[in-house]
Amino acid sequence: MITHYQASSQARVDAALEQLFVAPSPELDRLYAAMRYSVMNGGKRVRPLLAYAACEALGVAPEQANGAACAVELIHAYSLVHDDLPAMDDDDLRRGQPTTHKAFDEACAILAGDGLQSLAFNALLDPQLSPQTDAIRLVMVQTLALAAGPAGMVGGQAIDLGSVGLKLDQIALEFMHRHKTGALIEASVRLGALASARADQLQLQALQTYARAIGLAFQVQDDILDVESDTETLGKRQGADIARDKPTYPALLGLDAAKAYALELRDQALHALRPFDAAAEPLRALARYIVERRN
Amino acid sequence: MITHYQASSQARVDAALEQLFVAPSPELDRLYAAMRYSVMNGGKRVRPLLAYAACEALGVAPEQANGAACAVELIHAYSLVHDDLPAMDDDDLRRGQPTTHKAFDEACAILAGDGLQSLAFNALLDPQLSPQTDAIRLVMVQTLALAAGPAGMVGGQAIDLGSVGLKLDQIALEFMHRHKTGALIEASVRLGALASARADQLQLQALQTYARAIGLAFQVQDDILDVESDTETLGKRQGADIARDKPTYPALLGLDAAKAYALELRDQALHALRPFDAAAEPLRALARYIVERRN
Repeated sequence: MITHYQASSQARVDAALEQLFVAPSPELDRLYAAMRYSVMNGGKRVRPLLAYAACEALGVAPEQANGAACAVELIHAYSLVHDDLPAMDDDDLRRGQPTTHKAFDEACAILAGDGLQSLAFNALLDPQLSPQTDAIRLVMVQTLALAAGPAGMVGGQAIDLGSVGLKLDQIALEFMHRHKTGALIEASVRLGALASARADQLQLQALQTYARAIGLAFQVQDDILDVESDTETLGKRQGADIARDKPTYPALLGLDAAKAYALELRDQALHALRPFDAAAEPLRALARYIVERRN
Repeated sequence: MITHYQASSQARVDAALEQLFVAPSPELDRLYAAMRYSVMNGGKRVRPLLAYAACEALGVAPEQANGAACAVELIHAYSLVHDDLPAMDDDDLRRGQPTTHKAFDEACAILAGDGLQSLAFNALLDPQLSPQTDAIRLVMVQTLALAAGPAGMVGGQAIDLGSVGLKLDQIALEFMHRHKTGALIEASVRLGALASARADQLQLQALQTYARAIGLAFQVQDDILDVESDTETLGKRQGADIARDKPTYPALLGLDAAKAYALELRDQALHALRPFDAAAEPLRALARYIVERRN
């Protein structure tokens, strides 16, 4: 069920995104090509899916959340472009394709990332993509600016960079994840709910609890898969990456406790959705999928 | 008169900006320090001055434009941080101080720039800095996103990078300047006018004509000063930089015609302000100052 929902969310957001990469003049063709290249790369569109599913959970057609879905994906894409730069993670490949600074050049990748951040705000202001009232759109812009900025995602990246080689405890690790990836995941759900124009404060709070839990569950499961695929492919034992620079949940808690924690987070997420009816089924299915996936 | 106005605008915006650099948690101290370092550097604050002066031209106290003034300066500052990076202009010094990537490191400078862009949007949404109605603040956010983004400032930087070694004609040169620096100068004036909550369409249009003219006048005068300071300090003759990679107005038009063009642009700017009363005097003084300044 979630694969079908994921495919239709992906198709919907990709169609909406595509319109944003039309260069307004030929002099800007290369910059727009670099932005398009950075976004239209077959990504899974998990954040747009969350925005759509949150909008639907409130009984509203997902198309109302097109602006929200585009905005969170554009922020995510810009963060990857900058993250891949030589001065940051120095990655040459992403999804098997050359990273933006390899396919274009470093200066172009810096500017493409910068431009994508601006475009994300534009997406929330475009009346075609975001047909909400002024008051709602303003709260949406505010939500995005906070989640993307130095007190959110960018802050998380700075904390991550600053903690290389340090031994983080669980509290510090969760603090980092909650900023680096959690802030934008929470914003995706909240923006989708706001886009429905039907969310009350209690519902927004329940959805935030849900988003927090699945954001963390996603990280924990990622760490678990990392260990288990090591076990299969490299013959390393469980916990063999305790000695690594970056701390992981299996390293901190042990593999079994990490698995139990992932399931607990899933249950927290499902519990938060109890006030919602069947329209929240895609959100529920995603919570289950996150801890059941094998890659 | 303009020096006094400039000093008071600078003090006003610096006080407002300072509040934005308080790290919400100690883990974020270094990122916030890098952002603060990139902004609180004794800059002349020309863009904030324009926002304040436009607000005053409509008969409203400049404090109403604090959010606008912060926002345009934050965008300007982020563009300089990224522009100075090794992959871009590779500058070690700015205003005699180490550039952000030298004072911190490259990764931190990339993130600080990214964070400053988000903070600029936050400044327009902060009710203390931007006490306007939702409808006005939404137009302000839209104005900023367009001016800062790939169809504006970021686009201008891409065009500039792409035209190294090319011989631009006057039309191409103005197209580049209008994006690279003009878009944010126009936005500064427009945001200040919007912040007054009193601007009608005709006034916004007149102010746009003004902003376009002074933006260009600033570039032309910069090019002139570049030639003339060369003449004094290096003994080079007028037009000696025709052979340079980057085209200039004296190179394209000749020095005398470039000077005449700067004065013509000043007059265009002053003409556009004719419907405004004495409250627009700071805008007028700035237009005169731009072509009279010697550095």
